[in-house]
Amino acid sequence: MKEVLVKKAIEVAKRSKANGNLAYGCVLADGDGKVIMEGENTVITEHDCLGHAEINLIREASKRYDTEFLSQCSIYTSDEPCPMCSSAIFWSGISTLVFGLSKSRFYQEFGNDNPAINFNIPSKDVLKAGGRKVKVIGPMLEDDVLAIHRSSSP
Amino acid sequence: MKEVLVKKAIEVAKRSKANGNLAYGCVLADGDGKVIMEGENTVITEHDCLGHAEINLIREASKRYDTEFLSQCSIYTSDEPCPMCSSAIFWSGISTLVFGLSKSRFYQEFGNDNPAINFNIPSKDVLKAGGRKVKVIGPMLEDDVLAIHRSSSP
Repeated sequence: MKEVLVKKAIEVAKRSKANGNLAYGCVLADGDGKVIMEGENTVITEHDCLGHAEINLIREASKRYDTEFLSQCSIYTSDEPCPMCSSAIFWSGISTLVFGLSKSRFYQEFGNDNPAINFNIPSKDVLKAGGRKVKVIGPMLEDDVLAIHRSSSP
Repeated sequence: MKEVLVKKAIEVAKRSKANGNLAYGCVLADGDGKVIMEGENTVITEHDCLGHAEINLIREASKRYDTEFLSQCSIYTSDEPCPMCSSAIFWSGISTLVFGLSKSRFYQEFGNDNPAINFNIPSKDVLKAGGRKVKVIGPMLEDDVLAIHRSSSP
């Protein structure tokens, strides 16, 4: 099931790109594994440097659902979240993160010579600092995610 | 000048609290040290667990100003930013962070036995992982900020 839901996040990443944004996406699944929300990247179209897919999803989830409900939910992301988004998952109350492409593999492929976008702390390392424990699973389906980034400007 | 601008951030924190939110605030100063924006916390009134003062300010700054302009700016915060907000400062292009109360002092005073809000990675440690270097200055005026938190539920 985990791969199926990461694949759904990858579909959202493709849609983000088709909509003129960066190729990242995520979905939120409830305790039964049913997708209840999707998050697209909006960095370009909204002129919002913080418009990452996970931030957009969590802001909306926080308005719709209470912490008790979110503690039963899992977030599935096309890419390992950046330190900001890993931290946002901590604040949200969501219990599990499942990601596709790891940031280390991303940087292996695309380099990290642009200092403005070179920002890599593994999600596990960010989240282990939190008093509330969030389960982190990944990477998986890395070639599928790399294929999208290769055909865009990530 | 740094203390004067942290004091302005503390005034915004007081206003956040008066407006029914958590007692955190920040201001953005341009290269001449002129305050050009303020950021209030909106976690409670907007039902947004990510509505931290710095996130609110940076989302708006990102729409108003380009990266080149923001690279001349400094953000002044009442409290040392959480890992999410430290990371948001990295993405914003802002060059300098100046904070009042350190998170370690905050936890000393108020305890960290609530796992859902115990999340402490020093801003310097988050930001040193970034390819773009952000200068971090603080703590200062810690008693002023503690006084606000003591009279509220931080």
